[in-house]
Amino acid sequence: MMRDALSAIVGSEHVTTPPPSQLEDASIASAVRARDDAVLVRPGSADEVARVVGWAYANGVPIVPRGGGTGYSGGAVPTEPESVVVSLDRLKAVRQFDPLLWRIEVEAGMVTSDVARLARENGLFYPPDPGSAESSLIGGNVATNAGGPHAFKYGVTGAWITGLEAVVAPGELVRLGGSTRKDVAAYDLPALLTGSEGTLGIVTSVWLRLIPAPEAALPVAAVYPDVATGAAAIEQVMASGIVPSAIEYLDERVVDAAYGSFPLGDLGRGFLLLLEADGTADEAERGRDELLEAAREGATALHAPTDPSDVRRFWEWRAGVSHAVTAQEGGKLSEDVAVPVDRLAEAIEETIEIGSRHGLTACSWGHAGDGNLHSTFLLTPGDEDQLRRAGDAAEELFAMAIRLGGTVSGEHGVGLLKNGQLSQQWSPAAVELHRSIKQALDPKGLFNPGKKLP
Amino acid sequence: MMRDALSAIVGSEHVTTPPPSQLEDASIASAVRARDDAVLVRPGSADEVARVVGWAYANGVPIVPRGGGTGYSGGAVPTEPESVVVSLDRLKAVRQFDPLLWRIEVEAGMVTSDVARLARENGLFYPPDPGSAESSLIGGNVATNAGGPHAFKYGVTGAWITGLEAVVAPGELVRLGGSTRKDVAAYDLPALLTGSEGTLGIVTSVWLRLIPAPEAALPVAAVYPDVATGAAAIEQVMASGIVPSAIEYLDERVVDAAYGSFPLGDLGRGFLLLLEADGTADEAERGRDELLEAAREGATALHAPTDPSDVRRFWEWRAGVSHAVTAQEGGKLSEDVAVPVDRLAEAIEETIEIGSRHGLTACSWGHAGDGNLHSTFLLTPGDEDQLRRAGDAAEELFAMAIRLGGTVSGEHGVGLLKNGQLSQQWSPAAVELHRSIKQALDPKGLFNPGKKLP
Repeated sequence: MMRDALSAIVGSEHVTTPPPSQLEDASIASAVRARDDAVLVRPGSADEVARVVGWAYANGVPIVPRGGGTGYSGGAVPTEPESVVVSLDRLKAVRQFDPLLWRIEVEAGMVTSDVARLARENGLFYPPDPGSAESSLIGGNVATNAGGPHAFKYGVTGAWITGLEAVVAPGELVRLGGSTRKDVAAYDLPALLTGSEGTLGIVTSVWLRLIPAPEAALPVAAVYPDVATGAAAIEQVMASGIVPSAIEYLDERVVDAAYGSFPLGDLGRGFLLLLEADGTADEAERGRDELLEAAREGATALHAPTDPSDVRRFWEWRAGVSHAVTAQEGGKLSEDVAVPVDRLAEAIEETIEIGSRHGLTACSWGHAGDGNLHSTFLLTPGDEDQLRRAGDAAEELFAMAIRLGGTVSGEHGVGLLKNGQLSQQWSPAAVELHRSIKQALDPKGLFNPGKKLP
Repeated sequence: MMRDALSAIVGSEHVTTPPPSQLEDASIASAVRARDDAVLVRPGSADEVARVVGWAYANGVPIVPRGGGTGYSGGAVPTEPESVVVSLDRLKAVRQFDPLLWRIEVEAGMVTSDVARLARENGLFYPPDPGSAESSLIGGNVATNAGGPHAFKYGVTGAWITGLEAVVAPGELVRLGGSTRKDVAAYDLPALLTGSEGTLGIVTSVWLRLIPAPEAALPVAAVYPDVATGAAAIEQVMASGIVPSAIEYLDERVVDAAYGSFPLGDLGRGFLLLLEADGTADEAERGRDELLEAAREGATALHAPTDPSDVRRFWEWRAGVSHAVTAQEGGKLSEDVAVPVDRLAEAIEETIEIGSRHGLTACSWGHAGDGNLHSTFLLTPGDEDQLRRAGDAAEELFAMAIRLGGTVSGEHGVGLLKNGQLSQQWSPAAVELHRSIKQALDPKGLFNPGKKLP
């Protein structure tokens, strides 16, 4: 009956019952299992999304929006009985693109890197660059308010949104804002939906600001004997007077894991900072020189590639770090806590200690300038006891982040895995605000039920 | 009874019944009259704000938060019987300031320009610069999501907020986020409160990001024979590959009004663009040269002051434009509609036509790069018929902004004056979302009642 009703809306070829594994997170060590009774529907237009939601909302059917499946928290996995999974992957249109006016409207199903590429081909820059950009969908980036290395200078996904089109309860297609760059006629509902992980509605298209592409971006890699020296270098960099376009770090163990594939000679062992300066060719060069100067104290090695192909290989290596860590033992549990930047060194060191206490090899890397750590425990696939211990260790990570004044999620979202953590992080009255928003916008609780609960 | 109860919380010396004019907008032509039965209370701490709100919420008393009184929409004016006006002006503390970490937490009552000055004295930059920055309070800027000339490059107030402390119904002090730069553990409630004009709660403190101050900022003034030529120049500037730190405009009539006070010689009559490039001294200089080049076509005069005192006088002159326009006939009704930037020329020209149709002298200036117009009708104080016609003309302005794909308010807010306009701008389903948020967070409807209604 569900399949018939949905087929009538989107066509029977776009309604399937795939194996549960296809509805889970792409991450190897995903701990969230999909139900086997979920129906996958792939609408071909925003209007079809509205009709699917309308049918589901009227019939009490849970609605799970799904983008590229690149999440880490189970946010796009159907976990309630007889859910309809609404894939946005057929909504791929560029609805409007005005390069000379620095703006674009794209549908939710466009791949993130395609948005960035289209901008770049027209001399423009779309800065958010989550690690999964080659396969994540822009709608999923909106739903999680995705970040990436360049968020330090340029902000996360939400900083680039001027308007959204979304389907909200009970199946209404609404447009909130548009291409106008400033708008205070209403509450900032685009911002409320951004990062709401499909629990308040389904984003079907987004208006994005763009900026002229920087002419050049020049990186610096600096190696330090330990975390403390590296953290001191971050403070030197922030005192240098320039705004780096990225401040990334890899701890010693992550450097070891990715060592062999470093494309530019002998990296040097230790705690690694990756910095970048961008702008015109001259600006980037001068910024890079200032970063080199600021990073010098205590460094045991410095690298500053300038050849464009070296620079590209440098960042490709950085993008491969997560895979290199996974390759260590075949699996991993990786979190994304964030803390005020002055607590970063503590969080990095405590990640290792938490792992030790649970008999796990731990490491971390991430967006140092934003205080955002990918704290990670290495796992052997199939070792259930280890997985259980990793879960306990993750709880301690969350508690640490909160104790240091930070958050349980800097960029991946809450999904199913971090449910309930907000109640540790916020006061009961603040949590109650959160609940009241969900109740107001989704009175039947059918939008991605069980996800992002306080 | 109300005065006794409030005196018990904040001390009787901080509970007064001022003349209504002191509770109205500072703007001379404010059309919103304050009730004469409002009680003004000035809490000395966030905790006192919470207790005042708690008492008011329990007793069904309307709560009107008030900052510097520099609004234009009546947002901080008590218009319901027996309201309590909660002034934030005693909450002036800098709670935390870490210049080396580019962040500050300030209480809501700090004057905007004091925040900017403190940052600047420490080598940092707080970019939002609304025209009223010398007397507006930072809490009011948060409540309206204030902008200013530099919002074009740097974004509006909300772009700088990492966390908020606020009092929400029924009198709870909550902390939403903090100094951590990235946080997706919850819905973006700081963004929801930002721009909500006191209708969802009262902001008591705010965590702000800062950035290293640009070393230099160099302006360019370019005069054109008409709006169309000036608009074409804006497109040239946006195609130049640099991101100007400001793209402002003054139409011919505004130039006439401010002509005599231009501090740098003979400005030249016509449509005026004010551009700025910032960065290191070298970057600013090169950017300024590129702006000059981009602005040259069709220009009848170009000015590019370089002496720091000239640059300062240049922007002081810009800041005085609103007063110069007021001085023409003694009063004005000034709006803040915004449109997609490619519709700016139409909006500028139609502003004049709308004025003509109602027998009013009209003009506009504003933030060209953001498509944000201060469309203005000149008024003679005391002329009630003229004021009525200006009200009708404003309705046409709003309709024009919506027809051009824009918004009735780019930066001033809705307050009382623009109530109901959102229903023209958004679909019924989107308006219903707006209502449901208000209902969820303020079930008794006591937070700034009658303001920002769709």
